[in-house]
Amino acid sequence: MKYCSHCGQEVLYSVPEGDNRPRYWCNHCGTIHYQNPKIVVGAIPVWEGRILLCKRSIEPRKGYWTLPAGFMENGETLQEGAARETWEEGCATVEVGDIYTIFNLPHINQVYVFFLGNMANGDYGVGEESSDAGMFTEDEIPWDQLAFPTIGRTLKFYFQDLKTGDFPVRTQDIPPLKRKPALDENI
Amino acid sequence: MKYCSHCGQEVLYSVPEGDNRPRYWCNHCGTIHYQNPKIVVGAIPVWEGRILLCKRSIEPRKGYWTLPAGFMENGETLQEGAARETWEEGCATVEVGDIYTIFNLPHINQVYVFFLGNMANGDYGVGEESSDAGMFTEDEIPWDQLAFPTIGRTLKFYFQDLKTGDFPVRTQDIPPLKRKPALDENI
Ligand SMILES: [Zn+2]
Ligand SMILES: [Zn+2]
Repeated sequence: MKYCSHCGQEVLYSVPEGDNRPRYWCNHCGTIHYQNPKIVVGAIPVWEGRILLCKRSIEPRKGYWTLPAGFMENGETLQEGAARETWEEGCATVEVGDIYTIFNLPHINQVYVFFLGNMANGDYGVGEESSDAGMFTEDEIPWDQLAFPTIGRTLKFYFQDLKTGDFPVRTQDIPPLKRKPALDENI
Repeated sequence: MKYCSHCGQEVLYSVPEGDNRPRYWCNHCGTIHYQNPKIVVGAIPVWEGRILLCKRSIEPRKGYWTLPAGFMENGETLQEGAARETWEEGCATVEVGDIYTIFNLPHINQVYVFFLGNMANGDYGVGEESSDAGMFTEDEIPWDQLAFPTIGRTLKFYFQDLKTGDFPVRTQDIPPLKRKPALDENI
């Protein structure tokens, strides 16, 4: 951030009066430009024991498999966001169920939230941000080709909890990656 | 948003190419300025059967009582945010426990998250954004003087679940207020 989105003048980066941490702020119009974590919301779309995964056609992690998930948009609920992403990425209609996994990724200012979900039917397709899509059993999931740590952890929790039928909400912190991230990968 | 925070030129508000909803974006430098929901995170700080509430000294809802809660900051986890807000607003150290209530407020682009919490000891005080603070039993809580719907709902769930000792995660949507909001009230 270089310029004030309110008045167009250059911003400062320092601790505003009465605050306790540095912010971008404007000493022309007084606007403080707060920056806060973003929510990535997704679903575990299930149909007849298989889970819908999509192959990413865009960076970050192009070519890797993911559960449908993306940035929550203004004006929607978490559940609406999970259903929208499932539609956009996998062309599938999902009845969003209980909240299931919640991950803190403080190093990239993100919180991931996944919901359990039942697909309305077996229909799915390849959405705009996908190059492929498919329905997978536990054995069929491309475990070494998953896009993000949040995806693998959510899927592992799911199949673990499937044995008991009890799906408690699980919260975890995800540390920075050890592998070198791709050039534009933000995770 | 009027100006591009990256290059200082005036922004447009329209659907960018390849997108499906209007955004602020800059046709000088190409930056799309995404706007996403913010997380408000808080705790239910408990000590010896009483709950810590703080009286707000700032708008919105100045003079009304709240659980410690505020906007999650970049670089922290949900749990760290809940502990920070408890310290800042109520000068109390809380051991943050399980995630408990999650509220969608799509009309103001917010998601509220409250955690169960045990205070480390009985110490508390009046933080910078508070004009008073106190420890309340269910009967002592100023139910008609609570700042936000999320506070009352969380407290009611808490005392309801306290009877069984089981605190399932609860997710709810909160509709727009029917009362006229205060001038600068964003809830
Ligand atoms: Zn300005
Ligand atoms: Zn620009």
